[in-house]
Amino acid sequence: MMNLVNVGIIGSTGYAGQQLVWLLLNHPHVNIDFLSSNSYVDIEYSDIYMNYSGLLDKKCISNSAAMERIPDLDILFCAMPHGKSMDIVKKAFESGVKVIDLSADFRLDDPAVYSNWYGLEHSCSDLLKSAVYGLPELYRDSIKTAAIVANPGCYPTSCILGLAPVLKSGTFEKSTLIIDSKSGLSGAGRSCEVSKLYVESFESTRAYKIASHRHTPEIQQELSRLSGFKADVLFTPHIVPMSRGILSTCYVKLSDDTDSKTLVDLYRKFYYGEHFVTVLDSLPDTKWVRGSNFCHIGIGYDNSTRTAVIVSAIDNIMRGAASQAVQNMNILAGIDEKCAIDHPPMFP
Amino acid sequence: MMNLVNVGIIGSTGYAGQQLVWLLLNHPHVNIDFLSSNSYVDIEYSDIYMNYSGLLDKKCISNSAAMERIPDLDILFCAMPHGKSMDIVKKAFESGVKVIDLSADFRLDDPAVYSNWYGLEHSCSDLLKSAVYGLPELYRDSIKTAAIVANPGCYPTSCILGLAPVLKSGTFEKSTLIIDSKSGLSGAGRSCEVSKLYVESFESTRAYKIASHRHTPEIQQELSRLSGFKADVLFTPHIVPMSRGILSTCYVKLSDDTDSKTLVDLYRKFYYGEHFVTVLDSLPDTKWVRGSNFCHIGIGYDNSTRTAVIVSAIDNIMRGAASQAVQNMNILAGIDEKCAIDHPPMFP
Amino acid sequence: MMNLVNVGIIGSTGYAGQQLVWLLLNHPHVNIDFLSSNSYVDIEYSDIYMNYSGLLDKKCISNSAAMERIPDLDILFCAMPHGKSMDIVKKAFESGVKVIDLSADFRLDDPAVYSNWYGLEHSCSDLLKSAVYGLPELYRDSIKTAAIVANPGCYPTSCILGLAPVLKSGTFEKSTLIIDSKSGLSGAGRSCEVSKLYVESFESTRAYKIASHRHTPEIQQELSRLSGFKADVLFTPHIVPMSRGILSTCYVKLSDDTDSKTLVDLYRKFYYGEHFVTVLDSLPDTKWVRGSNFCHIGIGYDNSTRTAVIVSAIDNIMRGAASQAVQNMNILAGIDEKCAIDHPPMFP
Amino acid sequence: MMNLVNVGIIGSTGYAGQQLVWLLLNHPHVNIDFLSSNSYVDIEYSDIYMNYSGLLDKKCISNSAAMERIPDLDILFCAMPHGKSMDIVKKAFESGVKVIDLSADFRLDDPAVYSNWYGLEHSCSDLLKSAVYGLPELYRDSIKTAAIVANPGCYPTSCILGLAPVLKSGTFEKSTLIIDSKSGLSGAGRSCEVSKLYVESFESTRAYKIASHRHTPEIQQELSRLSGFKADVLFTPHIVPMSRGILSTCYVKLSDDTDSKTLVDLYRKFYYGEHFVTVLDSLPDTKWVRGSNFCHIGIGYDNSTRTAVIVSAIDNIMRGAASQAVQNMNILAGIDEKCAIDHPPMFP
Repeated sequence: MMNLVNVGIIGSTGYAGQQLVWLLLNHPHVNIDFLSSNSYVDIEYSDIYMNYSGLLDKKCISNSAAMERIPDLDILFCAMPHGKSMDIVKKAFESGVKVIDLSADFRLDDPAVYSNWYGLEHSCSDLLKSAVYGLPELYRDSIKTAAIVANPGCYPTSCILGLAPVLKSGTFEKSTLIIDSKSGLSGAGRSCEVSKLYVESFESTRAYKIASHRHTPEIQQELSRLSGFKADVLFTPHIVPMSRGILSTCYVKLSDDTDSKTLVDLYRKFYYGEHFVTVLDSLPDTKWVRGSNFCHIGIGYDNSTRTAVIVSAIDNIMRGAASQAVQNMNILAGIDEKCAIDHPPMFP
Repeated sequence: MMNLVNVGIIGSTGYAGQQLVWLLLNHPHVNIDFLSSNSYVDIEYSDIYMNYSGLLDKKCISNSAAMERIPDLDILFCAMPHGKSMDIVKKAFESGVKVIDLSADFRLDDPAVYSNWYGLEHSCSDLLKSAVYGLPELYRDSIKTAAIVANPGCYPTSCILGLAPVLKSGTFEKSTLIIDSKSGLSGAGRSCEVSKLYVESFESTRAYKIASHRHTPEIQQELSRLSGFKADVLFTPHIVPMSRGILSTCYVKLSDDTDSKTLVDLYRKFYYGEHFVTVLDSLPDTKWVRGSNFCHIGIGYDNSTRTAVIVSAIDNIMRGAASQAVQNMNILAGIDEKCAIDHPPMFP
Repeated sequence: MMNLVNVGIIGSTGYAGQQLVWLLLNHPHVNIDFLSSNSYVDIEYSDIYMNYSGLLDKKCISNSAAMERIPDLDILFCAMPHGKSMDIVKKAFESGVKVIDLSADFRLDDPAVYSNWYGLEHSCSDLLKSAVYGLPELYRDSIKTAAIVANPGCYPTSCILGLAPVLKSGTFEKSTLIIDSKSGLSGAGRSCEVSKLYVESFESTRAYKIASHRHTPEIQQELSRLSGFKADVLFTPHIVPMSRGILSTCYVKLSDDTDSKTLVDLYRKFYYGEHFVTVLDSLPDTKWVRGSNFCHIGIGYDNSTRTAVIVSAIDNIMRGAASQAVQNMNILAGIDEKCAIDHPPMFP
Repeated sequence: MMNLVNVGIIGSTGYAGQQLVWLLLNHPHVNIDFLSSNSYVDIEYSDIYMNYSGLLDKKCISNSAAMERIPDLDILFCAMPHGKSMDIVKKAFESGVKVIDLSADFRLDDPAVYSNWYGLEHSCSDLLKSAVYGLPELYRDSIKTAAIVANPGCYPTSCILGLAPVLKSGTFEKSTLIIDSKSGLSGAGRSCEVSKLYVESFESTRAYKIASHRHTPEIQQELSRLSGFKADVLFTPHIVPMSRGILSTCYVKLSDDTDSKTLVDLYRKFYYGEHFVTVLDSLPDTKWVRGSNFCHIGIGYDNSTRTAVIVSAIDNIMRGAASQAVQNMNILAGIDEKCAIDHPPMFP
């Protein structure tokens, strides 16, 4: 019989953290050593998230107490905001404990790009070379032996999965890649802001941070790797009134007369054998991936402008954060990659 | 190793049917023999519910084809509207196949009450004595050996679980029990009606079928059994703008000066050891039971009118239909009662 | 030609205040002298509520600056939280300026009841006798000459309008009046709380403050006046996932065999000539009164328990606050009572 | 004193028709002669839309009865689906009655383009030259004397208002104009379809009809007129879970180093004096134009790709249909253009 993987979660009370707890409680090969929090120290987790009433008898410990317990872990999940992960990840690294970091701190190869977009210096840039970008479909082999897995951002996950096959194929023009993404409100976290109130959100669709969202360099880095040259990305995030889900609509000018059918074949070939990516015959809908690790991709094509319109849908808290983190944990721990994240999307 | 339980689902394309499919696909001890449908014969199930794209390769068969396959089953789930289950259940009964019927056809002991409320004669009322009301907390032992399990209605499940302890205790006045329930829209099914459109529902709260909803006699029958005399029930259902969930607010005049604390103790004692019912210290919220088999109960008390206000929350498609059906199947099949329905509520 | 009524709004940036601004901007006989705020002093109103972009060029002044300007007004609207209105109202009273106060501070006749429920002493209880409860259908004549109009609470407006005819008629038993109300989230205001976030609210229905909500004594006072004896009220408020609207379901045991038809007649007679109250043949829905001053009332009846189930629907920000305040202003100022609040409910 | 304008509405029971009724009931210079309907002949309008209970005592007449009454009208509103307007408009034209047609039948100059996109021949293409595209900011003078006003589509209204200034200015590259629009569900009408149910819509964002939506040629025609050459438009519509509102995100490659500030000035100049178009300093949000005729425009700019990202927000039923139709009526009838449509957006 398999030993349980002993894990801790730092930053367990945000939306991604909570979803991690949900998945790991259902995981047959995991023991949760601790849940830590900044704001809820010594509070019963089931008083913060009452879906665990009667099911989870665990208080949040402080992040500093969590730091002490890192050496006892097999794997650490760090679900802190950017800028807050570096010291924690460093501690884990030095203790020989593998880390899956859900922040942006270890996603960008170039610390100059990081400080440029995030407005602060990277305090342990020497560790960046030990970090692997945790998108399993692209980096599965490197993840297996990584010391640090930088779990991708929610928008980047949807954009990169959506664009990887066509960018890898080389059959597109080197013009601007326009990515128009729509996200549910959980992507903005659990902190209180007037604009996130029900009353302010329910009939509200809006764009924000045009050409200045911090996920842009992450998308750019990965798309450039795929295409082999520096990709010009124009990324526009939007908030739409739903709780979960991201839909990314990606516009790519093709270099030849590739039609829609050829594109679908290209995508199917690229993702052949990939359980968690489904190339549809139709267009995706966030509702059909809700609560799951699946990514649905649909392909449109405009003949008159020779532009492919690739649409990808994920659940931002799952594939965009928690379930992808568990997928990475499974890979790291040598467990079946699908373990505990294989349920179909939950509808409605 | 355990043999798989071979099941079929008649009426698999309604909301309850779909949720059954979801749960049974995740169930380690079940094989789904067939999915049948009235409206979608020969259609891929994953084209009807695209959350199964790439995950389920099964076409819906017709209900008559399903009838033919009943003898091959261990257990039949019948998720048809009321009036449509009788012949099917009879066929299963005569084939010695156990049935879990999600309709109202086998819930009422008295066929006269049935025909009075449902406006049609019961065509196999001789089978009613072989049917057990499938509320596990009340009838677990009888369910184990039942030929037919009448899976409770969604409203009744919430009301009966909410009121059982106090009614059983006898400490209340024999005055009218007022039950004010609020349901999400999935309770009204997937059929197309203008009033169920997003645009017509999103800012809409309304009462309907005051004192005339068909779940009333079912609630009345079970509450009368619990209290030992005919319960006077005034049941008012409401529709509120959400997809899943029922909150039932139940008003009971107490016969003595029971305080809130005593009531909580009474409830905790009654449900001691019951995994799927949680008596809270606070008041329940439909969001905290979403996507699960759990029932949350909270207890309020008005001193000045000596009235207990019992509030219970369930997920109408889960505990009010599909997951309770699986719970019953587990009991029938001798499987761990919690198998495949034990995940915590999914938030958000 | 009529002179404009010069008004000021203290507390103009809450949801009720904003709705007042909307209505008063559309009012042909009103000049808005100032908008004041606690939190947004010196901020352009159209930067707080961008629906006024390009339409309203006015900065919020501080409440203390507003106090200085009271003497210049014809009528003052005070939309502050309870406890914060007393000094302001006193100042206006002493300046001979009429006030419409949207807080609870002048609604209760008995200062002892006030301090009991609100946990603070009333600092100008001598003014209570100069205040009229601003429900026009009940107190129109007194409002005309009132110095202070205590604008009713949102829940009380729906409950009192719903129950007035039957309580006045005397044909009911002196047993507990159970009122089960469901409110949209704007009733909870614009302050930031986790439970009011979209993600926390969208699939959430819950009861709160059972038998302890501060609107209870207000309902009790008015229902007692109507019936002529102390009414026993058990009031249970709920939050449902919508922005606007209150539906109140009121249970009244009748003393004789009044049927549903008789009740409807009684209600139609009571509200004969009242433009803003409509007694329906069917049951009301919050969506059909959205954005308006109308109250819809529907009547159900349970024969077996001889209980009337009166259901009333209002828009909580409009009839439950701002448009009722304007109705009161129209009465005070001798303007057509319907002026500027007569548009049909806005659907969807 | 002004005579009332006598109007009739054919197709009054769709969402656009209902909104027209709402606006025209509030209009001081209009008499509604008749409301007609296909599906609700002889039904009280207030039984179809209960927001008019007690406020509107009018039954729907049949469309053929409506045809008979056309000659009595001053202005006819025709709110039928495309393909159903031609005969009606012809009848009005021949009777010398002005028509505001909300369908697509008279929007496209070229009947070949019409038949290509709509799959049917135009039966009175000789009338097209008498039709004016009813976007007041662009065609006010022609509308004044038009026999037929082709009221613009909802998507085109948002896109054309959003792009007009930059296209007219000539400072952009002749590359593909990408328009990514997000619409609420009322845009899909009141007909019953499973995908429009609350339960199927509430967590659903999706693209549809990529490069094949019928509003494409309309957008193309108007953008080409503005720019002076054939515009290459790639239009992607999306459905997001809200009732009202369209947000269009428009991507335009600029020909020189125009910065964001210059663009804002250009837009402010273009719309100078236009009451119903507001150029914001920030980005628009559908919630801030809800229930109104206003269009909010915000401007983003990506330096690295020299691409302007113009975002425009309208209420699809108002500015995208009914209130723009009333604006056109006001122009036609010589009434103040803002009459009855000048209330600020209603929040929330």
